[in-house]
Amino acid sequence: MSEESLYRARVSRGLCPKALDFVSSLRDDERILVDDILGTLAHVLGLKEAGVLTERECRKICRVLGGLLKQARSGELRLEGPYEDVHEFLENEVIKRVGIEIGGKIHSGRSRNDQVALAIRLRVRKELLKTCDLLLKTSEEFLHRAEGCVELPIPFYTHTQQAQIGSLGHYFLSKFDDLLEDYDRLVDCFKRVNLSPLGACAVAGTGLPIKREMAVKLLGFSGLVENSLSAVSSRGFMLEVASCLNILMSDLSRIAEDLILWSSNEFGFVTPSDEYASTSSVMPQKVNPCTLELMRARAAEVQGLCMGLFSILKGLVTGYNRDLQETKPILWKIFDLTQDSLAVLKGVISTLKINEERCLSVSRGSYALALDLAEGLVLEYGVPFRLAHRVIGQAVRKCAEEGRKLTELSVQELEEISEKAGQKLKLRPDFIKKYAEPLASLRFRKTRGSPNPAEARRMLLKRRGELKKRRRSLDEVQNKIDKSISELLRKAGVR
Amino acid sequence: MSEESLYRARVSRGLCPKALDFVSSLRDDERILVDDILGTLAHVLGLKEAGVLTERECRKICRVLGGLLKQARSGELRLEGPYEDVHEFLENEVIKRVGIEIGGKIHSGRSRNDQVALAIRLRVRKELLKTCDLLLKTSEEFLHRAEGCVELPIPFYTHTQQAQIGSLGHYFLSKFDDLLEDYDRLVDCFKRVNLSPLGACAVAGTGLPIKREMAVKLLGFSGLVENSLSAVSSRGFMLEVASCLNILMSDLSRIAEDLILWSSNEFGFVTPSDEYASTSSVMPQKVNPCTLELMRARAAEVQGLCMGLFSILKGLVTGYNRDLQETKPILWKIFDLTQDSLAVLKGVISTLKINEERCLSVSRGSYALALDLAEGLVLEYGVPFRLAHRVIGQAVRKCAEEGRKLTELSVQELEEISEKAGQKLKLRPDFIKKYAEPLASLRFRKTRGSPNPAEARRMLLKRRGELKKRRRSLDEVQNKIDKSISELLRKAGVR
Amino acid sequence: MSEESLYRARVSRGLCPKALDFVSSLRDDERILVDDILGTLAHVLGLKEAGVLTERECRKICRVLGGLLKQARSGELRLEGPYEDVHEFLENEVIKRVGIEIGGKIHSGRSRNDQVALAIRLRVRKELLKTCDLLLKTSEEFLHRAEGCVELPIPFYTHTQQAQIGSLGHYFLSKFDDLLEDYDRLVDCFKRVNLSPLGACAVAGTGLPIKREMAVKLLGFSGLVENSLSAVSSRGFMLEVASCLNILMSDLSRIAEDLILWSSNEFGFVTPSDEYASTSSVMPQKVNPCTLELMRARAAEVQGLCMGLFSILKGLVTGYNRDLQETKPILWKIFDLTQDSLAVLKGVISTLKINEERCLSVSRGSYALALDLAEGLVLEYGVPFRLAHRVIGQAVRKCAEEGRKLTELSVQELEEISEKAGQKLKLRPDFIKKYAEPLASLRFRKTRGSPNPAEARRMLLKRRGELKKRRRSLDEVQNKIDKSISELLRKAGVR
Amino acid sequence: MSEESLYRARVSRGLCPKALDFVSSLRDDERILVDDILGTLAHVLGLKEAGVLTERECRKICRVLGGLLKQARSGELRLEGPYEDVHEFLENEVIKRVGIEIGGKIHSGRSRNDQVALAIRLRVRKELLKTCDLLLKTSEEFLHRAEGCVELPIPFYTHTQQAQIGSLGHYFLSKFDDLLEDYDRLVDCFKRVNLSPLGACAVAGTGLPIKREMAVKLLGFSGLVENSLSAVSSRGFMLEVASCLNILMSDLSRIAEDLILWSSNEFGFVTPSDEYASTSSVMPQKVNPCTLELMRARAAEVQGLCMGLFSILKGLVTGYNRDLQETKPILWKIFDLTQDSLAVLKGVISTLKINEERCLSVSRGSYALALDLAEGLVLEYGVPFRLAHRVIGQAVRKCAEEGRKLTELSVQELEEISEKAGQKLKLRPDFIKKYAEPLASLRFRKTRGSPNPAEARRMLLKRRGELKKRRRSLDEVQNKIDKSISELLRKAGVR
Repeated sequence: MSEESLYRARVSRGLCPKALDFVSSLRDDERILVDDILGTLAHVLGLKEAGVLTERECRKICRVLGGLLKQARSGELRLEGPYEDVHEFLENEVIKRVGIEIGGKIHSGRSRNDQVALAIRLRVRKELLKTCDLLLKTSEEFLHRAEGCVELPIPFYTHTQQAQIGSLGHYFLSKFDDLLEDYDRLVDCFKRVNLSPLGACAVAGTGLPIKREMAVKLLGFSGLVENSLSAVSSRGFMLEVASCLNILMSDLSRIAEDLILWSSNEFGFVTPSDEYASTSSVMPQKVNPCTLELMRARAAEVQGLCMGLFSILKGLVTGYNRDLQETKPILWKIFDLTQDSLAVLKGVISTLKINEERCLSVSRGSYALALDLAEGLVLEYGVPFRLAHRVIGQAVRKCAEEGRKLTELSVQELEEISEKAGQKLKLRPDFIKKYAEPLASLRFRKTRGSPNPAEARRMLLKRRGELKKRRRSLDEVQNKIDKSISELLRKAGVR
Repeated sequence: MSEESLYRARVSRGLCPKALDFVSSLRDDERILVDDILGTLAHVLGLKEAGVLTERECRKICRVLGGLLKQARSGELRLEGPYEDVHEFLENEVIKRVGIEIGGKIHSGRSRNDQVALAIRLRVRKELLKTCDLLLKTSEEFLHRAEGCVELPIPFYTHTQQAQIGSLGHYFLSKFDDLLEDYDRLVDCFKRVNLSPLGACAVAGTGLPIKREMAVKLLGFSGLVENSLSAVSSRGFMLEVASCLNILMSDLSRIAEDLILWSSNEFGFVTPSDEYASTSSVMPQKVNPCTLELMRARAAEVQGLCMGLFSILKGLVTGYNRDLQETKPILWKIFDLTQDSLAVLKGVISTLKINEERCLSVSRGSYALALDLAEGLVLEYGVPFRLAHRVIGQAVRKCAEEGRKLTELSVQELEEISEKAGQKLKLRPDFIKKYAEPLASLRFRKTRGSPNPAEARRMLLKRRGELKKRRRSLDEVQNKIDKSISELLRKAGVR
Repeated sequence: MSEESLYRARVSRGLCPKALDFVSSLRDDERILVDDILGTLAHVLGLKEAGVLTERECRKICRVLGGLLKQARSGELRLEGPYEDVHEFLENEVIKRVGIEIGGKIHSGRSRNDQVALAIRLRVRKELLKTCDLLLKTSEEFLHRAEGCVELPIPFYTHTQQAQIGSLGHYFLSKFDDLLEDYDRLVDCFKRVNLSPLGACAVAGTGLPIKREMAVKLLGFSGLVENSLSAVSSRGFMLEVASCLNILMSDLSRIAEDLILWSSNEFGFVTPSDEYASTSSVMPQKVNPCTLELMRARAAEVQGLCMGLFSILKGLVTGYNRDLQETKPILWKIFDLTQDSLAVLKGVISTLKINEERCLSVSRGSYALALDLAEGLVLEYGVPFRLAHRVIGQAVRKCAEEGRKLTELSVQELEEISEKAGQKLKLRPDFIKKYAEPLASLRFRKTRGSPNPAEARRMLLKRRGELKKRRRSLDEVQNKIDKSISELLRKAGVR
Repeated sequence: MSEESLYRARVSRGLCPKALDFVSSLRDDERILVDDILGTLAHVLGLKEAGVLTERECRKICRVLGGLLKQARSGELRLEGPYEDVHEFLENEVIKRVGIEIGGKIHSGRSRNDQVALAIRLRVRKELLKTCDLLLKTSEEFLHRAEGCVELPIPFYTHTQQAQIGSLGHYFLSKFDDLLEDYDRLVDCFKRVNLSPLGACAVAGTGLPIKREMAVKLLGFSGLVENSLSAVSSRGFMLEVASCLNILMSDLSRIAEDLILWSSNEFGFVTPSDEYASTSSVMPQKVNPCTLELMRARAAEVQGLCMGLFSILKGLVTGYNRDLQETKPILWKIFDLTQDSLAVLKGVISTLKINEERCLSVSRGSYALALDLAEGLVLEYGVPFRLAHRVIGQAVRKCAEEGRKLTELSVQELEEISEKAGQKLKLRPDFIKKYAEPLASLRFRKTRGSPNPAEARRMLLKRRGELKKRRRSLDEVQNKIDKSISELLRKAGVR
């Protein structure tokens, strides 16, 4: 019997090459090779427990699998041959080495349907933990940079128009908070990933007395996907992971957009370091923020990939369908794009050149002080805010028409404008001057979460703690899993 | 001063009608009218606390807002006029009634940016709780229907081909599990929604001494979106809600697909009740599962809407941008489509006609018993699974060619096939007969989570408890919020 | 017999209210009401021709339909009642007025499946022509504005970095070209829209001897969707329309982004007129480009809607499915968003304030002259471009470090840099000065399609002609259709 | 000077490895390697014409490029090294071989921005023509299969319910028509692809006197993308190509869905041949339509990729941005998925087993004859259709309740039902029998485009001609391009 016909007793001929190439996931399966071997080891130990394999048979198979695992980890094992997927490949490898009398038992009580679901979950778990780790590291960089510039004013924008004076440090803190929210989302999602589908067999369980809880323990899962139909057919957890990464990338794309804009000749607040910038083949003067542009584009790509996943699953009949095969490479691609973006962003942020002079001079000339002035009228002179808004609005208009800064306005002029607006006022001579320095504007802010430097420092300190807490939890989860896998390998007599 | 110029001191002319129509969100804002009034009440109480409003001013404003709230709740309040949004409308209403000297203070320390973020979060919270409630009710219906048919065999499918015998009850249980996972996802997401952005002002806080924690308490939030920039600019929580509903709808679409297929003349396992089916204008014999088809289509629509949300946010510069306005109606639409689908699905499931005879006869004639037979060879005769698979595969092939059922095969024939495949066997005379009845096939299954009726009943019981637990938590969350709002209204002297 | 049971002989009970509400498209069908009446008139004339209706019966029905048409056009006709759609509503209206003996014949040889396909195509045709008209008008505005500023230099950007000096006129011309490409795409698409599906009946034609060509002529179509199955089941034309509008909106969103950026305080090249800008409720100094931001967001929305359409159709079994109902409101929404955006963009462009001083001063200070200088070295001194690039690159670097403009560099300095780079040169004393004025830089360009003002003027002239040609064709198409419809109404004795 | 610093005179350090890996498109650029060399050859000939290169310099460079072309075509040329893209790689290869004095001139009057736009258009053109060729071949297969079964009845479905009797031949014809529409769309789109952007340089033309029309001719384009800004910045043509392929894949996914359903045990109309079916690793009886399932999934994937493209371009500022780099691999992937699907579908269709017996027996038992019967009442007895519909509806209901076929109803029974419905009739004794044979039902259809076998044969013949016409045009386009390229190579002295 030729190897490739292992599963094809029912049909009379093999897949034609074009069709095999079309349906084969062998290339993509490289990504779950190690996971599939680990899952198979757990299954084999379960078969021994169930009495389907003898101690000796089990040992023989484990030895082969152990060898394959070693080769897989070192990258030596090539997924090649006329197989539709890694599962067929693996079973063939085992049978080749220990014969069909023993090797032919490996697939008892298991189908490719629960097998692949298991391998996917093992791999998604690994990728998720890696992403979490990178995300914490990148977030930390934002905290680090925030530290240095809670007193560096920049305009904050609404509608891409200067709105209020903020600080670059506060900006970094804001992005840290967004990233931490993204992190917490991934952690919630992890609960629904870290479950074992093994034992669901094709779609409706098996008659062999396999204890599904055993694989849970050996592979470091926190529980079962209990219902056999859900175990092989449902992919909500993949949609959730993809969606969470999509949200994360959306946040990264907004950071990229900010920095691209701020790197322009016209804004000039920051410059990406040479290590993260490209040049032009023809325009000698250019320093192009290519890493950031690509990050922005990749967020779009992730959106599309995520959408593709959803479209695959929309209206798909329950049960295992080959359509599900396509979900794997899409999700791996999403992980790759996200992880690479995180790593590069970390580098961009840590090496970002901040043009302090420019930040200061733009802030000083900005009409973004207007709201502070209006609030000054409210606080010091009890002017109803709507009226104060109108008075300062007209003052800004006058200045804009005359090409003057707001702080160049005299107190008398402001009093006149105010009177015309129906609000007679007698202002302190230094009323406007008080806000002339952007830092004064920042210190004027009273509310929690504002860019007042004191408040920013308080937040910074608190977030250091938040970060540490998450790092500790993440390490614990990783350790628990590592221990389980070690124990599995020990039991299987591998290495 | 004309009303419409409240905010327009800076510019010399009003928006042209075409532009006003283009930018106005007034129509869409109906959805957040009540929420915006509640949020404004909390803000007004905060202004009193901060000393910006006197006790008397506060009372006057609250009285007006109370009146508007009543009208809004009864649906009398029409959002009309030359306003860009509900916020402008509300402030104008207040000023109209109490004059600009008092009413003009309502917007102190607040901008439309944090105001709308607050109203959105209040509304999303409400919709989320409503969706959770509907989801529990619909899920319950699945449990209920499962109860009646854990012993009714149907084929389970992989690749839309009959795969293993399962039970309709097990199918319902599987869908219940998927829906419960969707529920838990919504609950996780709620944590990131139920936070107050109020006090962030335009984008960088305010100089007025407002206590942000006060609104948290009055409005029943569980905390703050602390950083002012994140508070007005970040919409990760909306993306998450949309993504979760997208996943949920994806699950509904798969259920719809199953039932549409099973309602076809060819499958015939179920028939939607007349109350949930349409007829043809021209083909008198039709009973069309239109509700289910539309559910499937609406899942696609939700996918598109969700994608639209992500695309709006991709690469959007930080700060408030008018683009964000478009996120609101999209999210409301997603909620509507989901909630309606849940409610209709509940009706479809509870009234679904199950054609038991058809389920049984199809199961009896199905080759889906093949895996049970193969496992029988493994268990009783120690045949390695891969060989058993080959033997039974050839048996099925023979039967298919001769148009016979698998259970019509004689033990002798099976022995012959087996011998040719290199596996000499002496089988019990009743070996095949044992699996001839689909129920026997179900009872043969041993693993946890399988459709063995005993196992299904165990799962059913456990899930009853799971459901009750979630219902209790949900009610608690709702009650806590209701109490806060009551307290807010009491403090504001409303009703 | 109650009205609602017209189609429900086969089932015993009506749809429950919740389900009716869920499946009814009545509200959305307002959009195709007029079209459905026109289509029905054509069908009725066809039935007379086929001998199914007598002359008298035909006249009676046409009179009723004529009355409904009038009401529909004036907006008086309310689509109300317990109907699933406009088609059921119309048939009921006719039967109510002329009795079932005559009115009951109206649906002979037709089903809702070909009927709705017809109404959709009529409506899409109308919307497509309207969009084409708007698109030509908006494009014209770009030509118009280009005229005034082919000599106004602005930097052109790559990577949001100043790259080469261009002109604002050239920018407008570029956008005109993109829009004209979008226009031609819509015209190509029109060919596949303007076909009649009528006569396909439910899905497989009818036994009544109806001449399908008659409706083609009466309704001004250019041909048939011949195969009955394609006629009712295929929606490629809707996907194409949606995709074309999606591309168009993508172009609009890029224009919006440019103008938002250029309106920022930092760029300052343009300012949207007050009629197209919004103000801030709290920051008195703001002029917000809200119309443009919403245009950008709506492009995202259209992307999502388009995606939703595709997802509805993905993997949908052939034949009419109720899922298709959802494609209608989605496409109307895409049309609305696009048409509104086009109309508003026309206004924005025609009223856009151009800050010429700012454009000039930024251009003068820009390193974007570097490429011209490098090409000067190539042309005048035969320096290989790659070396010239290196020399000027180092010159820019030196200037940037010293905070000088490129044109402030002396010829001697450039010679020194050049020598260090291994290229000894003796430059004309005025070599650099030649490029100091941005206009000189523009005039230096030699290639076709460049922003050299002479070239821009040539393109402008040619495009005037292109525009006129398209306007003429569009009017012809519209006239031909109008004539057909008039003839239809005349034949039906309507008005 | 190290190679990698060719473009980096302006910055002081190279990209860090992580960033280089992130921004490099080198791997993806394999796909445009040949095209980039061809484009460069055209550019070099243009530089000679413009006097920038001497005859001798030109010859030297062409010799190098000719060698690289040969290697590229044979697959020997490896894109490796510290380059960001193929363009940098190529220029370095040339300079390495002929020195910077000559090789350094190759980039005169050209930037990577117009260069890559050119390479993309050349490649898209090639892929588009290949796709067109495959599409014609696959379409032909549908015609071919239609031929054999215009008289084989199957039920046609609406709402996945049997609706009217059709024929399998008519189904194939319908799909042929849809595919031909898809083809025509690609041809329209080709017009907007086959244009040359070369000469736009960075973004605003060049001062070197290059004739852009020369490249148009040498590379077989039909015209220019004239405006330099559009030439480097606009990607509408890519969006259009992607959208057209998206629509095509949407059609393929619907065919796949039909065939998957019809391959099910329950429908059983067709069986995919063994060469295009997979088996189960555990369920011996399965023949899984995996090729079709994957085709369906890949349509979803293409949707996502297409969406990703749109999202990249949404709101992207005008000019070249690095984001555009990501559009390339996405479009190639869309082409690959589509072309593979077309090729596999051709095989699936040509080898599809049709189960004639099953088609016939299902058709015979189907209530889908009901509409024919109702139309018989209209035609022969002048019953208004709505009443006929009601009568037959009740007849079907009666039969369904009693488990009888419609053709087993007696004329007397039908008369009774009719009388109860208020329509007294005296029917011919063989009235019902007339429709008892599905073929009679087919022959009863009168309208153009119906599945009446005579009509189907007429359509078949006509479509043969349509196909031939398109094949001829396609070959002409291909030949014209091949000739241009040959002429280019001849002029460049290559080969």
